[in-house]
Amino acid sequence: MATHFTVLEEDPNSRARLGRLVTPHGVVETPCFMPVGTQGTVKALLPRDLKDLGCQILLGNTYHLHLRPGHDLIRQLGGLHRFMGWDGPILTDSGGYQVFSLGAMRKISEEGARFQSHLDGSSHLLTPEKAVEIQEALGSDVAMVLDECIAHDATRDYVRNSTERTVRWAERCLRARNKPDQLMFGIIQGGLFEDLRRWCVEAIAPMPFDGFAVGGLGVGEGEAQLNRVSCFTADLLPVARPRYLMGVGRPQDILAAARAGFDMFDCVIPTRNARNGTLFTWRGKINIKRAEFATDQRPLDESCDCYCCRNFSRAYLRHLYMAGEILSAQLNSLHNLYFYHRLMDKCREAIRSGRSELWPYLPDNDTVP
Amino acid sequence: MATHFTVLEEDPNSRARLGRLVTPHGVVETPCFMPVGTQGTVKALLPRDLKDLGCQILLGNTYHLHLRPGHDLIRQLGGLHRFMGWDGPILTDSGGYQVFSLGAMRKISEEGARFQSHLDGSSHLLTPEKAVEIQEALGSDVAMVLDECIAHDATRDYVRNSTERTVRWAERCLRARNKPDQLMFGIIQGGLFEDLRRWCVEAIAPMPFDGFAVGGLGVGEGEAQLNRVSCFTADLLPVARPRYLMGVGRPQDILAAARAGFDMFDCVIPTRNARNGTLFTWRGKINIKRAEFATDQRPLDESCDCYCCRNFSRAYLRHLYMAGEILSAQLNSLHNLYFYHRLMDKCREAIRSGRSELWPYLPDNDTVP
Repeated sequence: MATHFTVLEEDPNSRARLGRLVTPHGVVETPCFMPVGTQGTVKALLPRDLKDLGCQILLGNTYHLHLRPGHDLIRQLGGLHRFMGWDGPILTDSGGYQVFSLGAMRKISEEGARFQSHLDGSSHLLTPEKAVEIQEALGSDVAMVLDECIAHDATRDYVRNSTERTVRWAERCLRARNKPDQLMFGIIQGGLFEDLRRWCVEAIAPMPFDGFAVGGLGVGEGEAQLNRVSCFTADLLPVARPRYLMGVGRPQDILAAARAGFDMFDCVIPTRNARNGTLFTWRGKINIKRAEFATDQRPLDESCDCYCCRNFSRAYLRHLYMAGEILSAQLNSLHNLYFYHRLMDKCREAIRSGRSELWPYLPDNDTVP
Repeated sequence: MATHFTVLEEDPNSRARLGRLVTPHGVVETPCFMPVGTQGTVKALLPRDLKDLGCQILLGNTYHLHLRPGHDLIRQLGGLHRFMGWDGPILTDSGGYQVFSLGAMRKISEEGARFQSHLDGSSHLLTPEKAVEIQEALGSDVAMVLDECIAHDATRDYVRNSTERTVRWAERCLRARNKPDQLMFGIIQGGLFEDLRRWCVEAIAPMPFDGFAVGGLGVGEGEAQLNRVSCFTADLLPVARPRYLMGVGRPQDILAAARAGFDMFDCVIPTRNARNGTLFTWRGKINIKRAEFATDQRPLDESCDCYCCRNFSRAYLRHLYMAGEILSAQLNSLHNLYFYHRLMDKCREAIRSGRSELWPYLPDNDTVP
């Protein structure tokens, strides 16, 4: 069997594991966080800044890159890595999630998902085969199968039918593969129903995927349901393959999921929150807009070594935000992604050493008092 | 006399000179370009990126910082250098230019300029004494006197009266000084009238200023008038003091003015053009929006060593611009300021070596064919 993933250590205190994922563009230590580079850029960060803060792997959005500038153009220009100046690993999603969240007039059939572009209203059909074709053109290291991301309040009938179709789409994705060095991950759906999740794992796990993702969570179902379903599903997945919890999430969600045995995470929270002025610290979140920070000479987080915390005060960061300066998005994004990467460093160190007291501590109270 | 400025070399082929300006925060080699850091940040660039591209000195805008976050706050936070994380030299303007270009309902009297904030309509009075007080609170290395920047089509009577008042304001600024280590530059006005420019120099040059600026140019008078008046005025200014041509300008304007004997320049063109997608190359300007660049794999400028040109294609830069990505402003600003700083490097090298063939060559045709 493939040796692209190795479990190096298992945490004696939880189901967490330390792993190593080998991709064509390099090795990723897991558990890992993947910043989201929607349109061929992680918003407001240079690739060299991403490397500096310890980023190992990026996520690219198939839906966005397909619509603009187009996957054929990116192939012609040498692939996504060269296009965006990032020589490390890239995982691409299948576009399915954005079709459901951004595409207008979407219509799902056995063939695929028809939708109108959010940019110009043009009509597109995303099939499993097309999702593979696009991701092969982009040249990502890890491709995802096309799935339907089901709303958390869908009926059991809807979830069952959709999940069955997602399984058939997974088989079609495997048959459509033309690029042996690109890894491909299957996706487990099944909504909030444990029996449907189990059925989906039993259908997908035997297929020759290089890893397995759990989708359809972090979409409004709440922390308790997220933890319940993700824990339940992680336990069913093969031990020897990487487990990716898609689109999750907040630092506390990631920690819980890592303890449940997930290896890979992505989320727009660190970068989107940064642009909205919400910043993570080891004492909780800070809303930099608040008037109390106008005269605050302290760094965002006195225990943080990032470029932002080493050089700038909360007062300056508040000023940049209030003045609408681009540098606000730059410094805030840099800090939040630095925070997320240190969070993952600490997870890995706790697992490596088997010392649960090294797990990152996050305060119950979400917001710095 | 003060030794803060030394003329190191004089160009045998023009009136250009190589100089060294010593400030409390470091030495500046002239001729130099000062990027504009309007609101306490050069838009879209980290201070470390400015250092990396060879930036020696920044310009800060008194008007903007006075209104937001306020000069008292910046003083309380340790001054502008600390606030914005820039430990190199800073020159601040007096705020006069923005009062005339941004302030609403402005009314000039002998006392000063009354105006309404462009942010909230609040009423403010900027006097010569206040301009000095603000700049001392900011703690810049070089302060500018308050002057009136006269419209290029003003009548002779208006120009004469205004210039006489600017001279009286200059005396008041000198009397208001409380910070001996902060350099202060006088400003020459006089519109497009050579006799009024001469009169103004004769009034201002004997005052104990550390340098002299020429204002009221680059405001729509056209290249021929700009060159005529700036050359004429430069010749009248003391040889032993730095000469600063305020708000100018395009690369060709800066080269012409450096040959006329100016030492310091500032302009928003490199950063503002960058955000608008207009990029400087050694073969002319490029408008990155143009469709022809959609598939262009070449760097912006094959002869440029900047981070942007070393890592990204025109096709990628066009994509970022069309997609409205923040990274577009970051990479474009980085490139344009790199270009301006290499322009000044080449000027200094040509003067140092006395070899006019080393003067930077800019094509007559403004736009890359």
